[in-house]
Amino acid sequence: MKILITGGAGFVGARLARTLLARGHLLGQDITRLVIADQVAAPADLLADGRVEARVGPLLSHCAALADEPVDGVFHLASAVSGECEADFDLGLRSNLDSTRALLDALRARTLAGGMPTRLVFASSVAVFGPDPVVPLPALVGDTTLPAPQTSYGMHKLVCEHLIADWTRKGFIDGRAARLMTVTVRPGRPNGAASSFFSGILREPLAGEEAICPVDASVSHPVSSPQRTVEGLIAVYEASREAFGGRLALNLPALNVTVQQMLDALVAVAGPQVRARVRFVRDERIAGIVANWPAGATAERAARLGLLPENNFEDIVRQYIRDCAGHPTALKGTT
Amino acid sequence: MKILITGGAGFVGARLARTLLARGHLLGQDITRLVIADQVAAPADLLADGRVEARVGPLLSHCAALADEPVDGVFHLASAVSGECEADFDLGLRSNLDSTRALLDALRARTLAGGMPTRLVFASSVAVFGPDPVVPLPALVGDTTLPAPQTSYGMHKLVCEHLIADWTRKGFIDGRAARLMTVTVRPGRPNGAASSFFSGILREPLAGEEAICPVDASVSHPVSSPQRTVEGLIAVYEASREAFGGRLALNLPALNVTVQQMLDALVAVAGPQVRARVRFVRDERIAGIVANWPAGATAERAARLGLLPENNFEDIVRQYIRDCAGHPTALKGTT
Repeated sequence: MKILITGGAGFVGARLARTLLARGHLLGQDITRLVIADQVAAPADLLADGRVEARVGPLLSHCAALADEPVDGVFHLASAVSGECEADFDLGLRSNLDSTRALLDALRARTLAGGMPTRLVFASSVAVFGPDPVVPLPALVGDTTLPAPQTSYGMHKLVCEHLIADWTRKGFIDGRAARLMTVTVRPGRPNGAASSFFSGILREPLAGEEAICPVDASVSHPVSSPQRTVEGLIAVYEASREAFGGRLALNLPALNVTVQQMLDALVAVAGPQVRARVRFVRDERIAGIVANWPAGATAERAARLGLLPENNFEDIVRQYIRDCAGHPTALKGTT
Repeated sequence: MKILITGGAGFVGARLARTLLARGHLLGQDITRLVIADQVAAPADLLADGRVEARVGPLLSHCAALADEPVDGVFHLASAVSGECEADFDLGLRSNLDSTRALLDALRARTLAGGMPTRLVFASSVAVFGPDPVVPLPALVGDTTLPAPQTSYGMHKLVCEHLIADWTRKGFIDGRAARLMTVTVRPGRPNGAASSFFSGILREPLAGEEAICPVDASVSHPVSSPQRTVEGLIAVYEASREAFGGRLALNLPALNVTVQQMLDALVAVAGPQVRARVRFVRDERIAGIVANWPAGATAERAARLGLLPENNFEDIVRQYIRDCAGHPTALKGTT
């Protein structure tokens, strides 16, 4: 079978590609071809796999080709991120809304031409939730919490969820949307996103560098490791429609942790001298943004698919250290 | 001031136009120009008003002109209806999503060129609500009920709500979305929509004709008269942002009535001989569709704007009879 990953050169996309290549199959069928579409080149280890075919360029430019070269399944991860969308409104609309619409139109054209509806997993985000001024968030956002996006990125994700649900209802695709939690620990450098410190306060001290935590230690947030996130996307792909439950998006599992718990885990795994490299310097701008984010999430439908959050944050820190030590290329991804 | 009504030749749109022309002002400013954009010609009584300028053709074709000829406010009612969208997927996308996007882009271009953000009221619909298989509807759908559209039309309306909310958040427009309830009594002929009988069981017997009711007398539904619907749209236009409350759509007021109550009102207002023209002949297809609709709605935010549903269905029947008797042109509208 032939699988397409949009955004497959990014951090989560590349890890998903590696995981799929390592397991070799989906739904009992061998993966013979893995198409990685991204604006940038895929990491070298992926390109070295004979099954991988890389397509570099904007997603919009790849969609027309899908009508002639069908794929059996799609993981749709390509997206401009929240900071980009706030800075460049048109870029966000083009990258997130117009590209998804073009992808869905291409897949629909295949079905109308007699093909089987293509299975598609869409990487949505916990960013769909509010709070809206008149809709205070519950303590934990769940599968049925009312989304009230407060960023263009969150709005794009929510709109795409509903496009995919309707394409699925009409039988044009077999689509599912899963909301990713904040993925940590991300490798690389701080990226300027307000959430960047959720990786930085682990990654930098582990690399022997100082890190600044811009919010109070009491701040709580729903997080997931890269590997659990990838496993969640695959499980959602393989779920029957009945097991997935309806057409609305589901939350992927979250470990709801406070900054304090993250740092305690760092002490437990790496020692107090590593933890000592993190300093608290409150940044009112970032603290204000984060104060409006959900403090945690539940994932009842994902649990019914057998998906659970990590047991504790120590496991997430250990996963990162293991990735750094044993599989240096596993950290490569362009974003 | 210059006001644009998209879909202004339709039944609700034309009534809105008449009401605006009669009151003559919005937010304390005189309405000097009323642009009625629709695919078909506006009713003659509207065209006879010197303030009215009619533009006939697809909405998409009018949007470019908005950049050169700004308007002060917009009532965006143009829409393909649910039956059309289910029958012609592309028509629905073009009429409801692409047209709204083009309208919003044109208004944004005005703001970026230095204009004031245009105030816009979007006519959304109670059709945004489900039920989804995993999200059973509450007894009454409210402002904060999770939407789970089960038609393309409902999906389009929900997506446009969120586009408008984000354009508003960014300051490109001053947008508000209000969900219309089922408007009854509509004049004209049965239109093939599953909800058509909610007008037909009143309109036909009052005209001396037989009518078939395809569902049980116990079926309950949220309805509103044409005049209350129009008053709701105007109140939402005139509300301050604070009074509107957030950026999410609100429900317009609904009178939650059973078919039995509608027919009892017909007896009370027009007599048993008129009621006797309605026969119950169950239509499983229609009954099945209607069984999935909300049995009623609440409208807490609208109530805070001073908007209330009719006191009883008798008043709705009387409004229709008054319209028929005294103002025959008031019933004219193309849909």
